[in-house]
Amino acid sequence: MPFLQNTWYLAAWADELASDKMLARTIVDRPLICFRDQAGQASVLEDRCPHRFAPLSRGKLDAGVVTCGYHGLSFDSKGRCVRNPHGPIPPAVKVSRLPVCERHFCIWIWPGEPDRADETLIPDLGFIDRVSAQERVKGHLETQSNYQLMIDNIMDLSHADYLHPQTLGGGINTRAKCEVAESVNEVAVKWTALNDTLPPAMAQFLPNPQAPGDFQNEVYWNAPGIMRQRVAFAEHGRLQTHGFESWTSHVMTPRTSGSTHYFYCHTNAALQQNPEMAPQIDAVLRSAFQGEDAPMLEAQQGQIGDHDFWDLKPALLSIDKAAVLARRHLEKLIKAEASSSP
Amino acid sequence: MPFLQNTWYLAAWADELASDKMLARTIVDRPLICFRDQAGQASVLEDRCPHRFAPLSRGKLDAGVVTCGYHGLSFDSKGRCVRNPHGPIPPAVKVSRLPVCERHFCIWIWPGEPDRADETLIPDLGFIDRVSAQERVKGHLETQSNYQLMIDNIMDLSHADYLHPQTLGGGINTRAKCEVAESVNEVAVKWTALNDTLPPAMAQFLPNPQAPGDFQNEVYWNAPGIMRQRVAFAEHGRLQTHGFESWTSHVMTPRTSGSTHYFYCHTNAALQQNPEMAPQIDAVLRSAFQGEDAPMLEAQQGQIGDHDFWDLKPALLSIDKAAVLARRHLEKLIKAEASSSP
Amino acid sequence: MPFLQNTWYLAAWADELASDKMLARTIVDRPLICFRDQAGQASVLEDRCPHRFAPLSRGKLDAGVVTCGYHGLSFDSKGRCVRNPHGPIPPAVKVSRLPVCERHFCIWIWPGEPDRADETLIPDLGFIDRVSAQERVKGHLETQSNYQLMIDNIMDLSHADYLHPQTLGGGINTRAKCEVAESVNEVAVKWTALNDTLPPAMAQFLPNPQAPGDFQNEVYWNAPGIMRQRVAFAEHGRLQTHGFESWTSHVMTPRTSGSTHYFYCHTNAALQQNPEMAPQIDAVLRSAFQGEDAPMLEAQQGQIGDHDFWDLKPALLSIDKAAVLARRHLEKLIKAEASSSP
Repeated sequence: MPFLQNTWYLAAWADELASDKMLARTIVDRPLICFRDQAGQASVLEDRCPHRFAPLSRGKLDAGVVTCGYHGLSFDSKGRCVRNPHGPIPPAVKVSRLPVCERHFCIWIWPGEPDRADETLIPDLGFIDRVSAQERVKGHLETQSNYQLMIDNIMDLSHADYLHPQTLGGGINTRAKCEVAESVNEVAVKWTALNDTLPPAMAQFLPNPQAPGDFQNEVYWNAPGIMRQRVAFAEHGRLQTHGFESWTSHVMTPRTSGSTHYFYCHTNAALQQNPEMAPQIDAVLRSAFQGEDAPMLEAQQGQIGDHDFWDLKPALLSIDKAAVLARRHLEKLIKAEASSSP
Repeated sequence: MPFLQNTWYLAAWADELASDKMLARTIVDRPLICFRDQAGQASVLEDRCPHRFAPLSRGKLDAGVVTCGYHGLSFDSKGRCVRNPHGPIPPAVKVSRLPVCERHFCIWIWPGEPDRADETLIPDLGFIDRVSAQERVKGHLETQSNYQLMIDNIMDLSHADYLHPQTLGGGINTRAKCEVAESVNEVAVKWTALNDTLPPAMAQFLPNPQAPGDFQNEVYWNAPGIMRQRVAFAEHGRLQTHGFESWTSHVMTPRTSGSTHYFYCHTNAALQQNPEMAPQIDAVLRSAFQGEDAPMLEAQQGQIGDHDFWDLKPALLSIDKAAVLARRHLEKLIKAEASSSP
Repeated sequence: MPFLQNTWYLAAWADELASDKMLARTIVDRPLICFRDQAGQASVLEDRCPHRFAPLSRGKLDAGVVTCGYHGLSFDSKGRCVRNPHGPIPPAVKVSRLPVCERHFCIWIWPGEPDRADETLIPDLGFIDRVSAQERVKGHLETQSNYQLMIDNIMDLSHADYLHPQTLGGGINTRAKCEVAESVNEVAVKWTALNDTLPPAMAQFLPNPQAPGDFQNEVYWNAPGIMRQRVAFAEHGRLQTHGFESWTSHVMTPRTSGSTHYFYCHTNAALQQNPEMAPQIDAVLRSAFQGEDAPMLEAQQGQIGDHDFWDLKPALLSIDKAAVLARRHLEKLIKAEASSSP
């Protein structure tokens, strides 16, 4: 299945970009460099000099100008050749530049037709903007698995009970009532449990960690792999008055067909008062992902290999509903794009 | 060349299987799990959950029930889904199970049509059963080479003189008289030498290691890659009265087209009286295989690559007779199977 | 693009060959062994026993006779089977032998039709012969990049200013006047600069390293990838009377389509008086190549992947003229060979 081209992909966190150091990153099979010009504007170029195809990331970035480390050609943030030390600047020589938008502390890129790069199409991750810096815990991880498996993983959080039993699981995700809804461009899934045993990583924040609790967990998917999650929990009956609430974005950007960038950003008002919780939360998220999710997803990818997922005829369970709807939405978009391209 | 499907393959030693720990092993390109149910019966299932294709070997085995580590589906030793924590058990959800037979301390599996899995077709390795545990030296090794090269290696033991000169060789294998016989389903090769210099690893057991000896070495092949070897030697003229005799099985089970499981079991009545010889014999076998055979076989495989062996037009020598007959037998069986399958 | 077959390739330095130890080396995708017979004649054979395809390089070389380490067949330096310990020597059993010529302290091989192996076609590297041993600095290195990229690299030495700024560059290569000439079978490129800042690795040899200098740099290419370089420099105006001059061969021999053998030999009359300079020069050459050229060339290769170079439409600059002419010459030869072969 090809990648959707006319869409926004999260390429990097905004603070990963600088005007004196390139960030090299492969997205939808394209090696790219990401950096800032002197005005601080983000720019994303193909990581390939048009002269002899040396990766520009092996060169230098100085004041927003990239100079190839092989023969010294320089390019500005628009990809235009601005210096040829060996003669006149050849008019046709340029580096491909992708439409870029900086929003929600993220750098978004549009690999498809530049004219169609409409910034209003970026899903709203405004919750990230509405909190202070210390209320955010964010990171970037990678897996050797397809991005659709990564999306499935978030769209069916019942897996937490089996894969993360000591932190995010314990049984409540399986016992919770699950509701799925879809609209034109969104799939939503909500889990609700009342008077149940909270996951250990949540229960520890209650005055009495042993007490039964109430639990709401909601995930909203937008194409291609952008998910927002709301979690709320409290001692039973106290969700309105003493609830803990967090919003987390989980964004899956294809690196290649067999590898994925995972960008997460957890926001939590409680961090304002308890900044020492931030590294703890980050450690739980990273450790769950790197020690439990990633090995399983990579093993799953290994079993699937180059097969088409549906050709393998997966057994469909009730818990798959949201993940399957998200897959169907995405497949429809990819097919529409394939049929409309020349 | 495809693998023969309707045949028994040695998958594991019986004592590798337990009811609380799965053994993951790939055979004829199929990732499998091997374990025991609560009654101790061996079971071999596809190592892939039918839900999302997670390897079951990453889950848990408890009382003969396998639970997937990703979403918690459980399967019994027949591959039937016995628990879906998320709802009713879907009737069609099951894991493929292979016919299994436990015999001669080995677990045998039949990758082909289950109805044709006839246990009487397992070649007779009864010599393993007829000795006591301390008279057996057995192991499992792997190589990155095709199983047919591994069979060739055993069917032409003249290689010992060149590849194992300090232990199993020395020249006698080349000088010995060699006779080959074939029947409907067996190829036999016998080497006989009288009044000759025994291989160092044998001579050391004689009262006078320098004395000339008599030597018999016989290998019997059955499809697909099951070989029994009888070795007898003694000081010259004393084979009937003071001979040392051993029987060894060498079983080559394809892992993939380019990798092979090697199961060996050496039995030797002298071990009854001299149990301290067992680790010495095991060390000789392992060291010859891992230090000498495997590197050569893997280099040979490297030169052959993906080419068909016969397309490369190997020079045929007299020593190849038994190996070529075994290849021809096996190829005939594989072709017959291909032509009879739908 | 296939490799040119009817041509001489530099396979090894003459002193790499011995009569008691084989040198295994892959050239134009063919695994080979190189050694000497008892008379000291160089011989190059396919590294593959015709019996079971074991690499002969895993066997033994004794008095110019190669014995396979698997079953003991022996071959002489012509590839003829001279011993079969298992029976009569089969008449058809032989190892392919390549035409070999030893010249300029190099072992040259001809992978194409043996009848066409004309030694007068070897480009003249006589400068290597005309100096004493201590005036030579030579070596063999490898890269994971196509040989044509390696040739491009030498045919456009302007790269030194960007890739080797602290040693061979600094800007003079870019500022120098560049002239390109071609004849029937040679491409020549000459850079000249007067009263300019010499590269640091050259300036250090001047009485006053800060003084402006004169600089001549010439490269002569012959198919398939044989280049001679003349460098002369001196303090400004003293090139005729106090110049330093060196000749260096840079020979690129394809190992596979994605890897290359690089043979270099630097000759320098000044080494006669200053033999301590030899290891310094070798260190500069190796360090520039391994630390700067090879990583860039391998990254460039990574970006090109399996694409045809021209299909990627490289931007052509004035500095590419010599490299492009050399590519065109070579492509013409390869096409002519393809159209004339049956």
